[in-house]
Amino acid sequence: MKPLRAASLIRDIPDFPKPGILFKDITPVLADPDAFREVTQAMTAWAAGQRVDAVAAIEARGFLFGGPVALSLDVPLIPVRKPGKLPHSTIAEEYLLEYGSNTVEMHRDAVAAGQRVLVIDDLLATGGTAGAVGSLLRQLGAEVAGYAFFIELMFLNGRQTLAPAEVLSLVKIE
Amino acid sequence: MKPLRAASLIRDIPDFPKPGILFKDITPVLADPDAFREVTQAMTAWAAGQRVDAVAAIEARGFLFGGPVALSLDVPLIPVRKPGKLPHSTIAEEYLLEYGSNTVEMHRDAVAAGQRVLVIDDLLATGGTAGAVGSLLRQLGAEVAGYAFFIELMFLNGRQTLAPAEVLSLVKIE
Repeated sequence: MKPLRAASLIRDIPDFPKPGILFKDITPVLADPDAFREVTQAMTAWAAGQRVDAVAAIEARGFLFGGPVALSLDVPLIPVRKPGKLPHSTIAEEYLLEYGSNTVEMHRDAVAAGQRVLVIDDLLATGGTAGAVGSLLRQLGAEVAGYAFFIELMFLNGRQTLAPAEVLSLVKIE
Repeated sequence: MKPLRAASLIRDIPDFPKPGILFKDITPVLADPDAFREVTQAMTAWAAGQRVDAVAAIEARGFLFGGPVALSLDVPLIPVRKPGKLPHSTIAEEYLLEYGSNTVEMHRDAVAAGQRVLVIDDLLATGGTAGAVGSLLRQLGAEVAGYAFFIELMFLNGRQTLAPAEVLSLVKIE
């Protein structure tokens, strides 16, 4: 796969959200419709080979990519949200962070048993969030068709957390 | 304009997020790709008549509609976020709620002076959030090309808050 032009638009922001973190700012990619389209089309093309029945997009930046990909694949879009945001009956999964924990929620009626679901987010770091979404999907009887990310922080080994599921990342940061 | 099929898929959830509120759940619309597409296409068709240079999408549900609309219009997508989420230099606007206040933020480099920006969210209630986004855009020298919502709660008169800007809502709840 040839390098995406979108990769050149990612902006490094030192010390955000805290000292020592080099944040990958994707807003210049969103500001360039050709680059944004390049990313969603690359995710769609990969997903087309994974037999995908639905797309689960992770709040909030995952929503930006999940909408276009779900529409291109012509499959349902499932929002995965922070606690207390989804109004109907939910299932929740807590996962550990370096300090503390986070929780993701999904509607219980969002997937049917046996459906193959593609999980989308902007960035793969440790894989904690995406892995928790995979766990929710499996608890609901669905399968993870794969995980698709715009950016992967290779040095955090998130891909191992998600194994043996298939993982697409379009920009790999060493 | 003929009624959208998507309108029939909106699910009423009583007493969410607190007693007395009838929440409009759009997840069944997202789960139906034809209905989701119908909404984004109707927003795009309307925007095409408003001379739009960029789309500002409001976190988090506005992101779901903003991505497809910005791509269809072939214009930049500007994420409007809760405080502390955007990594570069930001401008913030606080607005009052019934109890307390909220704040929205935008990157200062997100728009250029004179650009016409379409503001997108899923729901127009009192218009506090959308109006604050309009204020941010004007502070940055941009113009509000219009506001587009999937649902409008007519009885909250949010449209008056946004006047004289043009407002599209696809489903009007009396």
